[in-house]
Amino acid sequence: MQVAVLAHEKFPDRAKTAVGLLRYADYDIEAVLDRDNAGKRVSDFVPDVQDAPIVAEMADAPEVDALIVGIAPIGGGFDETWRSDVTTALERGADLISGLHYFLEDDEEFARLADENDCDIWDVRKPPEDLTVAQGVADEVDAEVVLTVGTDCSVGKMTATCELVEAAEEAGIDAGFVPTGQTGIMIAGWGNPVDRVVSDFTAGAVEEMLLERGDEHDVLFVEGQGSIVHPAYSAVTCGILHGSMADKLVLCHEAGREVVHGYEDTELPPIEEYVDLYESLAAPVHETEVVAGALNTKDVEGDEAAREAVEAFADQIGGAATDPVRFDAAAIVDEVVGE
Amino acid sequence: MQVAVLAHEKFPDRAKTAVGLLRYADYDIEAVLDRDNAGKRVSDFVPDVQDAPIVAEMADAPEVDALIVGIAPIGGGFDETWRSDVTTALERGADLISGLHYFLEDDEEFARLADENDCDIWDVRKPPEDLTVAQGVADEVDAEVVLTVGTDCSVGKMTATCELVEAAEEAGIDAGFVPTGQTGIMIAGWGNPVDRVVSDFTAGAVEEMLLERGDEHDVLFVEGQGSIVHPAYSAVTCGILHGSMADKLVLCHEAGREVVHGYEDTELPPIEEYVDLYESLAAPVHETEVVAGALNTKDVEGDEAAREAVEAFADQIGGAATDPVRFDAAAIVDEVVGE
Repeated sequence: MQVAVLAHEKFPDRAKTAVGLLRYADYDIEAVLDRDNAGKRVSDFVPDVQDAPIVAEMADAPEVDALIVGIAPIGGGFDETWRSDVTTALERGADLISGLHYFLEDDEEFARLADENDCDIWDVRKPPEDLTVAQGVADEVDAEVVLTVGTDCSVGKMTATCELVEAAEEAGIDAGFVPTGQTGIMIAGWGNPVDRVVSDFTAGAVEEMLLERGDEHDVLFVEGQGSIVHPAYSAVTCGILHGSMADKLVLCHEAGREVVHGYEDTELPPIEEYVDLYESLAAPVHETEVVAGALNTKDVEGDEAAREAVEAFADQIGGAATDPVRFDAAAIVDEVVGE
Repeated sequence: MQVAVLAHEKFPDRAKTAVGLLRYADYDIEAVLDRDNAGKRVSDFVPDVQDAPIVAEMADAPEVDALIVGIAPIGGGFDETWRSDVTTALERGADLISGLHYFLEDDEEFARLADENDCDIWDVRKPPEDLTVAQGVADEVDAEVVLTVGTDCSVGKMTATCELVEAAEEAGIDAGFVPTGQTGIMIAGWGNPVDRVVSDFTAGAVEEMLLERGDEHDVLFVEGQGSIVHPAYSAVTCGILHGSMADKLVLCHEAGREVVHGYEDTELPPIEEYVDLYESLAAPVHETEVVAGALNTKDVEGDEAAREAVEAFADQIGGAATDPVRFDAAAIVDEVVGE
């Protein structure tokens, strides 16, 4: 599928979704829309992903099957300066994919244009209507289930999950990706936004995805969310932990992170305590083990220091560890998918 | 406020909400609607709650300020045989209070009648629109916060919470009740249905209530939900634990319960493990301690055997314990609200 990705004024550093799509999605990205960088190319900013031209507006983009809104303003609203890009896309017959809190399908003009031009609007944050409570049966699928869990938000769980899928596939393993957040869902092209479902259905929303895909792959990598001791988001983390009934856990952490992001009064407990908490909390529903770690060393200067940080992290979790971006997820694939 | 409570064909054994209202709410209950028991009285079935006549339909009930739907069919839908009761109530100017999944305010006939007769319709399962993520500040309220936590669903957390509020008030303590589920909300007359909110807002929905009431009382008793190791509902439990930032926990359990209700393949872990899990999971956000236990001994025959079960439970949690219904919540009030 050929797509354009809207990332006005934010590419690449504040366009996490756009960069995630460029790095991990199977879409052919024909253009990135960023009026501040029109005329440049993706490769001028991000070297190790698929390249594409950067254009000022949708009118300058080549024909595509869909326009993806690849950024989110604070609050998740719709920026009216994007309206002409969206209407142009619909008038040209392109579908819309959006992760905004503001649902594009509820916008009268977009809905009318989509109808007139036979386009689909997919608001990925809108949960399906038919979700319900978990039955506690995710362990019945054929696939081994691996879940990424974190010490905090924004430590690299989605990235680690995508890198693990790629590394497993390179090792000849039939691996699937189970997304739980908006960027992951856009990358995968399917999935339930677990942080937006009715709280009673949190585990059920994960279980539903595992039942749908669990017999199609040998290993499923489930994207985790938040942290089990996060002041605001632990409910989602706990629901994913129990709903996925994961066989193995990969603990994700950012080197140097000492307090909860955005909740600076709250210190992160020691890594060993996370390992113990995740394992002991999961066990009554399904026995599991933290078998490996993914350390995000983006703020560590130099590969040598980063490698030392990774080794220290491996010691703390009592397993293998890597930085799947700076180094390679292949280093932990054996631990994660082996017997 | 004078109310009638609808409980057709289910009073009292399958009308948990109706019985909860009769036992704990401040409403004057003028009639219970149950067409199977018309002509009898509440006291013919339940001796230790406020008494009221049982009538066949709303037309037979005295004037009231509101009709409360006090039962829920499987699935939470609206039973069309109740329609004439609801329309009669609205035509007589009574408000509606309902905990059904089916929102009465979305019913065209009810909405029209409510409008014509100046009645309010309160669907207690519908969360307020303005909820958001927790800020991690519930510990800043003046009140000490006590949370009931459970080994499973339906072990008596709401009952224990209500009994503790009453026992604290009898001991001269200014105590408030923070409801989190539909029956608790109907009893309290306010509150957020924490199990129905967007999963990311679970902790925030609890925090919002504590910030609203936390400076009005010396102690707030927060109604817990589910269990931290429940295959389906642990997300809600975890969100309440971290969102409430409780100072003390009261562990609720049903004597004889060995497997998760409705998930019979899943054994309950030992009581000591629950104590450890709740405390260690809460600690990174807010230090807390299981200080007492509430054991539901309704299936234990004889007071002596029940007292032995309570003593064994007290030993397991390393604190005081009681059955707040069979015996008295006063037995644990000192542990729960003392220094």
